[in-house]
Amino acid sequence: MKKAFDTEIISVGTEMLLGHITNTDARDISEMLSKIGINVKYHTVVGDNPERLRDCVRIAKERADIIITTGGLGPTCDDLTKQILAECFGKKLVKSEAEERGLYEYINVGRKLTENTFQQALVPEGCTIFHNEWGTAPGCGFEAEGKIVVMLPGPPKECDPMFENCAIPYLKRLSDEQIVSHSVRIFGIGESAVDDIFADEMNHMVNPTMAPYAKECDCLLQITAKARSEEEAEAMIAPVMEHVKQRLGDVVYGVDLECVEEAVMALLQEKKLTFCAAESCTGGDIARRFTELPGASAFFKGGVVSYTNEVKSALLGVDPALIEEKTAVSFEVAKAMAEGLRVRLGTDMAVSVTGLAGPDGDGVHEVGTVFIALAVEGQTYVREVHMGTFRTRSFIRRMAGNHAFDMMRRWMSGLEVVPDWGIGGMR
Amino acid sequence: MKKAFDTEIISVGTEMLLGHITNTDARDISEMLSKIGINVKYHTVVGDNPERLRDCVRIAKERADIIITTGGLGPTCDDLTKQILAECFGKKLVKSEAEERGLYEYINVGRKLTENTFQQALVPEGCTIFHNEWGTAPGCGFEAEGKIVVMLPGPPKECDPMFENCAIPYLKRLSDEQIVSHSVRIFGIGESAVDDIFADEMNHMVNPTMAPYAKECDCLLQITAKARSEEEAEAMIAPVMEHVKQRLGDVVYGVDLECVEEAVMALLQEKKLTFCAAESCTGGDIARRFTELPGASAFFKGGVVSYTNEVKSALLGVDPALIEEKTAVSFEVAKAMAEGLRVRLGTDMAVSVTGLAGPDGDGVHEVGTVFIALAVEGQTYVREVHMGTFRTRSFIRRMAGNHAFDMMRRWMSGLEVVPDWGIGGMR
Repeated sequence: MKKAFDTEIISVGTEMLLGHITNTDARDISEMLSKIGINVKYHTVVGDNPERLRDCVRIAKERADIIITTGGLGPTCDDLTKQILAECFGKKLVKSEAEERGLYEYINVGRKLTENTFQQALVPEGCTIFHNEWGTAPGCGFEAEGKIVVMLPGPPKECDPMFENCAIPYLKRLSDEQIVSHSVRIFGIGESAVDDIFADEMNHMVNPTMAPYAKECDCLLQITAKARSEEEAEAMIAPVMEHVKQRLGDVVYGVDLECVEEAVMALLQEKKLTFCAAESCTGGDIARRFTELPGASAFFKGGVVSYTNEVKSALLGVDPALIEEKTAVSFEVAKAMAEGLRVRLGTDMAVSVTGLAGPDGDGVHEVGTVFIALAVEGQTYVREVHMGTFRTRSFIRRMAGNHAFDMMRRWMSGLEVVPDWGIGGMR
Repeated sequence: MKKAFDTEIISVGTEMLLGHITNTDARDISEMLSKIGINVKYHTVVGDNPERLRDCVRIAKERADIIITTGGLGPTCDDLTKQILAECFGKKLVKSEAEERGLYEYINVGRKLTENTFQQALVPEGCTIFHNEWGTAPGCGFEAEGKIVVMLPGPPKECDPMFENCAIPYLKRLSDEQIVSHSVRIFGIGESAVDDIFADEMNHMVNPTMAPYAKECDCLLQITAKARSEEEAEAMIAPVMEHVKQRLGDVVYGVDLECVEEAVMALLQEKKLTFCAAESCTGGDIARRFTELPGASAFFKGGVVSYTNEVKSALLGVDPALIEEKTAVSFEVAKAMAEGLRVRLGTDMAVSVTGLAGPDGDGVHEVGTVFIALAVEGQTYVREVHMGTFRTRSFIRRMAGNHAFDMMRRWMSGLEVVPDWGIGGMR
């Protein structure tokens, strides 16, 4: 594969043009392609209309080497992508007997048969079929007129796993090179600070390469290498990874994770520990985030959302006089919330959050002021963070949750739980 | 404005092509345009590259009447949209003194001055400037070569309000027609059932029009009218709205709302009531969703996430013998959870959820089995819902939350709280 294989993603579906759904397929495919070093140059969205789709394919043939389509492979009459793409590349559609058998099985388990169900078994002649284990419409890939064409179904829960499991190996097969990429996940310093640290090195790196990216309330550093084999690429990444981890130190919470709660889950498993959460301004978001992870129930015993002072007293045992004296948004109340719930639920750890997520203030503290506590046997740690009055309610809530998870991670890893960071809660 | 004014949205930004951010601007703009009856025909995403952007504008001029750009208006050297669009339409960039004054004020409050800050005060000659109250880079609109061009900044929190407040009035001004649209929000029957009910009527409607859309775990019916004035359009919608509400009955939870919790918030305010939530499989999502709404603290007193049987007993007062006898996922335990928390927190209502969100089962119930309870003074209602084993964890959690909010809405509205719906929890 030549170094910069230009790619266009054409997403087919009128729902996107009406604003009913977001084109997440193009985002997800782009992210996966960038990890294997393939450059996406254009995204196009077009409706379920043969002439306009034909026109878009004509334009893509002029400006791209790889054309990837999403959507329009299903059994309804709107679904026209396969027909148009085959036509644009002078290919006939032929019946795949394996796919037809699959459709019969599908119908046999009681699903609805529509007039066009079996259209889905038609594929461009000579293509590589991507069998769809997550739905019915198969995808496919073929090469013609010097271009590579990949077609995938539109629903993200079909498109994403098919792209990863079928299209990525198909595209990699075309190449002599293997591309391997790992992301170092970071909480405690921002993307621009990471950029500052490595700017000089990054400017001189060719293979492997490194690039920092901002994520929602944390950031990552992506390290990518190209080589003849995966092993070779991994071997090229290893010393860079080591260097990055050394240089960044304990703000690195993991490699190739999606979020800090995944790192916490792994440590809970390793150390056989449990926790609970007493949440005020995060309103249940810490519990919600952790319980999104399958298997959470082995480690997370429960939580309390104490949105009023009475609940802080009734369920967490916080002394009303303490709240009166220090106000609900305080170091002392955060501490008492975590300690109170930990004792009541008998967990190894308890986290708590109390703060002002806005938009309204309490007349005492600035919006964005949050106290986060971690209580363990014999010790309670509290972070005071001022995120700034310009932050949104959802940013403040998510960032507060990240601090709570980060405190658990650091305590379980034997690191300083409340490092000497700035008032913004970052190094 | 002619009836079908074809529109292309060009979003400029390499981050989208790398998969770091999703093109929500195009979705949001498309949704707003569809409500005023303007048809979006294409979305295009292109990187921060002058040649490729120039090419995209050339293609858009051939196939669209309205060209809307997002992104590339800021002060960094990557930001090139204004230069290229002005060039493509043979316009010079001229300095806007009002915008320049605005930038001086911005710098005076201590923000960072970059070399290119004042480039932002340059706008295409003769354009209508859209002042940016949500950031610094102004947007603009102009007409040239029979086309209408609208440019907006990329960050969604600037793009969305500017489109609504500046671009929509600008585009409406070009038209003799006023377009008014309302969405009827529905929980309790699916989109295809709504479609079945109104299919015949919809086929014969010209103005107003009606269309059903699926949303996340509920659906809506959009009613749109075009007329000489807004008043006239509203008057045309009124009888259709009345008819739709009559026909659908009490599954309508509101008009022009975003989610069922907004309807609940309005009723809580009207009736001066409070509630609390005891959550097992939703893991805090009900609390999280309600507390996303500013002002939630006046109505939501608190919640318990009871992820283990011990917590159900310790914080909700559920009898361990009852859990032993009936299992945690049962009618009786759901009832006891809601009743227990309501008494403890002294609220008017309490909702509870216990069920299996998967992927793992408990060996007794199928994944997707959920019991949702509502306890009020002297009465507790319970819904038993079987969503199906093929549903995702996040679908099951969101749908369970919708049922809890729907039960509160129905009770506060004096409607039957547990209607005779199917086992799927829908009519």
